[in-house]
Amino acid sequence: MRDFEGFDLANCPVRHVLDHLAAKWTTLILLELEPGPQRFNALARALPDISRRMLTQSLRDLERDGLIARAVFPTKPPSVEYSLTPLGHSLLGPLNGLIRWATERAPEIAAARAVFAAQA
Amino acid sequence: MRDFEGFDLANCPVRHVLDHLAAKWTTLILLELEPGPQRFNALARALPDISRRMLTQSLRDLERDGLIARAVFPTKPPSVEYSLTPLGHSLLGPLNGLIRWATERAPEIAAARAVFAAQA
Repeated sequence: MRDFEGFDLANCPVRHVLDHLAAKWTTLILLELEPGPQRFNALARALPDISRRMLTQSLRDLERDGLIARAVFPTKPPSVEYSLTPLGHSLLGPLNGLIRWATERAPEIAAARAVFAAQA
Repeated sequence: MRDFEGFDLANCPVRHVLDHLAAKWTTLILLELEPGPQRFNALARALPDISRRMLTQSLRDLERDGLIARAVFPTKPPSVEYSLTPLGHSLLGPLNGLIRWATERAPEIAAARAVFAAQA
């Protein structure tokens, strides 16, 4: 197992963070919150193929890691708003780097898959 | 659902690529191959907590996406070597950006988790 800047990737906390960030929905939620705070219902509408249960769990995971903040407003019924923390904001740069790569390289990946399928 | 450079993240191929890259083992395999080509057995030793079956499947997925190349040498028994393609190499930059972020911010995330656990 290769070390990365002194960390053993197989056993270090960074690995768990990466696994976590790698979860499909957390990435999409962070991107949704980039322009500004959102209510739960707005997030649910923006991400229609995520169940409400999974959205709730993903938001909780992100809050637990300090990437988003949850604010409850005393309206009737109470409304809940989510926003990026400074830590969450700092993740958008590297995350967008990865998305940019995937966007730019998607045609090459699709071509590789076609070749692979033709060989199989 | 927010568009990213004209892509609808919920339905576009980029999303599938991201999901795929997000898989825990693919990241680690790409990092293992960064210094140079490796045989299957060397990868298996370098990543002791991945089963041989999962390693085989992950290598196949990476080959399918054109990120790694597989070469078979006619030794007895035949030896199989894996290496990064130029496409795979191009992913290391954004990937290392994300790992660097996780490495640098791990203490903040751990602190956020401690606060969250104390509140729960």
